[in-house]
Amino acid sequence: MLYLYTASDAERWSDAFRLQLPDLDVVAWPAPVDAAQVRYIVTWNPPEGFFDGFPKLEAVFAQGAGIDKLLARPDLAPNVRVVRLTDAGMSAQMVEYALFGVLRFQRDFDVYATQQANSTWEPQPPRLAEATRVSVLGLGAIGAAVASTLAGLGYRVSGWSRSPRELPGVRCVYGPTALDALLADTDILVSVLPSTPDTRGLLDRERLALLPDGAALINAGRGDLIDLSALVELLDAGHLRGAQLDVFPAEPLGTDDPLWRHPKLLVTPHIAAATLIEPSVKQMADGIRLLQVGGEPAGLVERRHAY
Amino acid sequence: MLYLYTASDAERWSDAFRLQLPDLDVVAWPAPVDAAQVRYIVTWNPPEGFFDGFPKLEAVFAQGAGIDKLLARPDLAPNVRVVRLTDAGMSAQMVEYALFGVLRFQRDFDVYATQQANSTWEPQPPRLAEATRVSVLGLGAIGAAVASTLAGLGYRVSGWSRSPRELPGVRCVYGPTALDALLADTDILVSVLPSTPDTRGLLDRERLALLPDGAALINAGRGDLIDLSALVELLDAGHLRGAQLDVFPAEPLGTDDPLWRHPKLLVTPHIAAATLIEPSVKQMADGIRLLQVGGEPAGLVERRHAY
Repeated sequence: MLYLYTASDAERWSDAFRLQLPDLDVVAWPAPVDAAQVRYIVTWNPPEGFFDGFPKLEAVFAQGAGIDKLLARPDLAPNVRVVRLTDAGMSAQMVEYALFGVLRFQRDFDVYATQQANSTWEPQPPRLAEATRVSVLGLGAIGAAVASTLAGLGYRVSGWSRSPRELPGVRCVYGPTALDALLADTDILVSVLPSTPDTRGLLDRERLALLPDGAALINAGRGDLIDLSALVELLDAGHLRGAQLDVFPAEPLGTDDPLWRHPKLLVTPHIAAATLIEPSVKQMADGIRLLQVGGEPAGLVERRHAY
Repeated sequence: MLYLYTASDAERWSDAFRLQLPDLDVVAWPAPVDAAQVRYIVTWNPPEGFFDGFPKLEAVFAQGAGIDKLLARPDLAPNVRVVRLTDAGMSAQMVEYALFGVLRFQRDFDVYATQQANSTWEPQPPRLAEATRVSVLGLGAIGAAVASTLAGLGYRVSGWSRSPRELPGVRCVYGPTALDALLADTDILVSVLPSTPDTRGLLDRERLALLPDGAALINAGRGDLIDLSALVELLDAGHLRGAQLDVFPAEPLGTDDPLWRHPKLLVTPHIAAATLIEPSVKQMADGIRLLQVGGEPAGLVERRHAY
């Protein structure tokens, strides 16, 4: 039995699952469920203690890619497998989000917005994609799509990841030392990194200061990657040009948060990659079929790396 | 002899020409020139009467793609050939400019900018590229690059041109009747059309009104394409969502122009595609070599179509 505990669109999720897995019982909250029969749960951030009392629970399928909050829960037994979304239509959206940010800085749309507010007509010198160094942090399914698309559009793209990767047209480096060198060689930094013990606070004050004068930053991964007060200081000091932030240590951002009003920040409400029902259900259904025959679904979380 | 009359960077233009055409005499204004020896002129918008007194002038190479102002000059004899830039690095820039505008509307960055100004965290429902109908007006070298790139990123792209074209992944239509039908089937309209007798005023009040509720518009071609007062009225009435304009009937836009302050307009100072010296000189030098052997250079203007 599959138990669906979702904040919204329960009916669309249920219908999609019944279409993909006609032989599996699907029960969607708030319908009553026989907890003893549940083998799979599909959810995002259920209330505290939610996972207690499912004796046959085998796997939890997260309705998103970032599973840091799920792994931190005491009610989720260590033997239960956790599966995150790997692509499910998120890569294409993340590519769009990153591309908008890269174009905005490369083509000076931030400068032109200020000029428009001042009724000033002042063309900036052209800066070509091939002269723009974009560095992508995170080269999983999503990061690889971002880096490859940017490379295809002519940018000088480097990519950084925990372990070695290869991507055509992208200079790939890995490990902490390479990160420091990469930051110093970056015009626009794009992060799609998840929140793990390795990435929390990774872009601290020292590392942010390694970015060259006038560099810009786009964060579409997780908010705890960056020391935000250091970022704001580097923006205020004129060292960094600007930042586009989709994720924050606490969400939603409070009405009083000064980040909203910072002139060099573009703030979006965690919309870089929305969970799309049909492709997500497709990936989860494939995962369930694989688990049923002893296979390993895509997105199975390695708990040792917390991702 | 080639005479270079350019507003800026005369030395870089001269050096590039001497590198490409070592056997040709190159004289750059303000150096004195023997007008009787000049066969080729490279310029953009020289002063009135400039073209008088070059008895052997064969061809004028324009330092841009839009040659409407040049063709309208009484001092340019009809037997002198006019050659415009066809790509010369402009396509890639135009793709970037259009892509920024498309992403901005598709991904609601205009809405999020307003929300940020109001400290409001409110995710909008996702809209996928495949559900976004983008129509590109103009399918020359530049428009074809714009349409193909957008199609490659997953948008539902149609293209419109004066004469029939074919582009993989792009639904191509042509002629005035097809334009009206296309407008009604468009979420985001992108124009890279030149200014010709056929295109001036093409997007008049009636045609703009054919765009569906909530449609947006990007103009990176020429400013006289659009009835701007009709556009502003349709924006004010809430029929159109927004517009990104790089070109205007008179440039630069005056400080007092209300367009600067319209909340639904993004205004840029004619920067969508800057003329890049090296690729431009390369195209012009190839053109001169072809003219010298009786060939037809790329970008040779068909005066009958004024393009």
